[in-house]
Amino acid sequence: MSLLVVGSMAFDAIETPFGKSDRIIGGAATYIAWSASNFTKPIKQISVVGYDFPQEELDALSARGVNLEGVQIKKDEKSFFWSGKYHMDMNTRDTLDTQLNVLANFVPTVPDSYQDCEFLMLGNLVPAVQMSVIEQLKNRPKLIVMDTMNFWMEIALDDLKNVLTHVDVLLVNDSEARELSHEYSLVKAAKKIMTMGPKYLIIKKGEHGALLFHGDNVFFAPALPLEDVFDPTGAGDTFAGGFIGHLVRTKDISFDNMKTAIIVGSAMASFCVEKFGTERLRGLTKDDIDGRIRQFQELVNFDIELV
Amino acid sequence: MSLLVVGSMAFDAIETPFGKSDRIIGGAATYIAWSASNFTKPIKQISVVGYDFPQEELDALSARGVNLEGVQIKKDEKSFFWSGKYHMDMNTRDTLDTQLNVLANFVPTVPDSYQDCEFLMLGNLVPAVQMSVIEQLKNRPKLIVMDTMNFWMEIALDDLKNVLTHVDVLLVNDSEARELSHEYSLVKAAKKIMTMGPKYLIIKKGEHGALLFHGDNVFFAPALPLEDVFDPTGAGDTFAGGFIGHLVRTKDISFDNMKTAIIVGSAMASFCVEKFGTERLRGLTKDDIDGRIRQFQELVNFDIELV
Repeated sequence: MSLLVVGSMAFDAIETPFGKSDRIIGGAATYIAWSASNFTKPIKQISVVGYDFPQEELDALSARGVNLEGVQIKKDEKSFFWSGKYHMDMNTRDTLDTQLNVLANFVPTVPDSYQDCEFLMLGNLVPAVQMSVIEQLKNRPKLIVMDTMNFWMEIALDDLKNVLTHVDVLLVNDSEARELSHEYSLVKAAKKIMTMGPKYLIIKKGEHGALLFHGDNVFFAPALPLEDVFDPTGAGDTFAGGFIGHLVRTKDISFDNMKTAIIVGSAMASFCVEKFGTERLRGLTKDDIDGRIRQFQELVNFDIELV
Repeated sequence: MSLLVVGSMAFDAIETPFGKSDRIIGGAATYIAWSASNFTKPIKQISVVGYDFPQEELDALSARGVNLEGVQIKKDEKSFFWSGKYHMDMNTRDTLDTQLNVLANFVPTVPDSYQDCEFLMLGNLVPAVQMSVIEQLKNRPKLIVMDTMNFWMEIALDDLKNVLTHVDVLLVNDSEARELSHEYSLVKAAKKIMTMGPKYLIIKKGEHGALLFHGDNVFFAPALPLEDVFDPTGAGDTFAGGFIGHLVRTKDISFDNMKTAIIVGSAMASFCVEKFGTERLRGLTKDDIDGRIRQFQELVNFDIELV
């Protein structure tokens, strides 16, 4: 029972109202791995990097229990690079630069040793690459969770819709849910998206929390109110890592356990935004995480007797 | 043990992306009374209306347990009128017209029969009028809750700050909290506002729920995810009515009970937005309200064992 993670491993350069980072380690699969490895090991990673990706980062991930056999290293190409600038509200950002580099022609290969994975986390990536991984798996995983973004809705909508018919859980943010469904109401958007394939839909609303939909059921997890959101980059991937990590650890894919998984994901994301990049995720202990989950319990628990 | 409510009773004309109302009954104290009267009676109302305010509405409120002795009827003036248009997100709106009319020179008088009130709800109104009511009370109420808005921050900030030093609980929305504190982070804003008088602060975020702050404690209540928000006018007042109504009914002003009161307020607000004006609030039963509160329990309850 292990977790297969697909996604980018990359460099980011980030500007926020609070500061500016150098070129730092980023990428969906990187954040997912740092987050999920708190709950389950090994993590079997599929990605691609260039000659410029630091060996120390690969070593750190290996030491963390991340299997890198499925990570291709292109000796004559550069790693994917993204640069962006956040606005004051931290929910909106402008992309300053995108260099696809190794991602431009990425053809993933699933190693034989990955074929036993029962959980598949498709991090945000070219839909055709996500599909290729699904197709290479000899046995359908017990649960397939997919993240994506508006970019693919604009340039690869048919491919994206095809992947959707193969996944159990879709993760998008609120504006992406609206774009995908052409519905403004998130409740209506959710109903429409759940006819496109996924039986479960998570809509992330940044500082406003996240919603989980399944049939007529809905669950809401708040974001932890923080004094400062320092850098939201990777918060969605970190959330996904905590969500899938909890499901793999507990081996329970019921709706009730997905509620808890969303709280775990929200707790992990609340750490991510406290520092630039993956920095805050690297030194977390079980006590840190348990303490944060207790804060979520206090944040939403209430008693009422309906007489 | 009864509830004193101060606020406007008025006419509104509302445009939303879903439709347009005629001139309909509105006003903070009207919404508060319709909402709170589900939980406590009598409600002792202080307000002012003009000759044009319908007797049927006054009769309906009386029948509901609202004491109108403190409501002045100005025979030669018109009632307060507000007209506004909501944007697609329903969290922002443009004011199209404001006619102060009877509110321009309103001097409230607290009837002797109101002096026994232990709970005071200051609905959104001229801060000097709110202050006058506090000053006319011979015994300080057990709990004073105040609502206000950005308009008063812009034209009567000193008066507003003076009232703040006399109240226990302040209700504002997120942009008002930012304007009052000059802090963007709501956590920082809350800390600053709690040094200005109120020991409890509720920050309403519309469709994104509400936060309750007290010292270092924080509680979050979501808004119910709805297929359509038809008309948000009065939702904040309805929330306030449910909040104070629950506190009066239970006679418990602890932080823990305020958490529950916020859920009750959120449940009431979720009804308000389903139709224009106060329409949806008029026919509610205890079963309707209990059912809605159960939906909130399902929406946020989760289990986790931290081992």
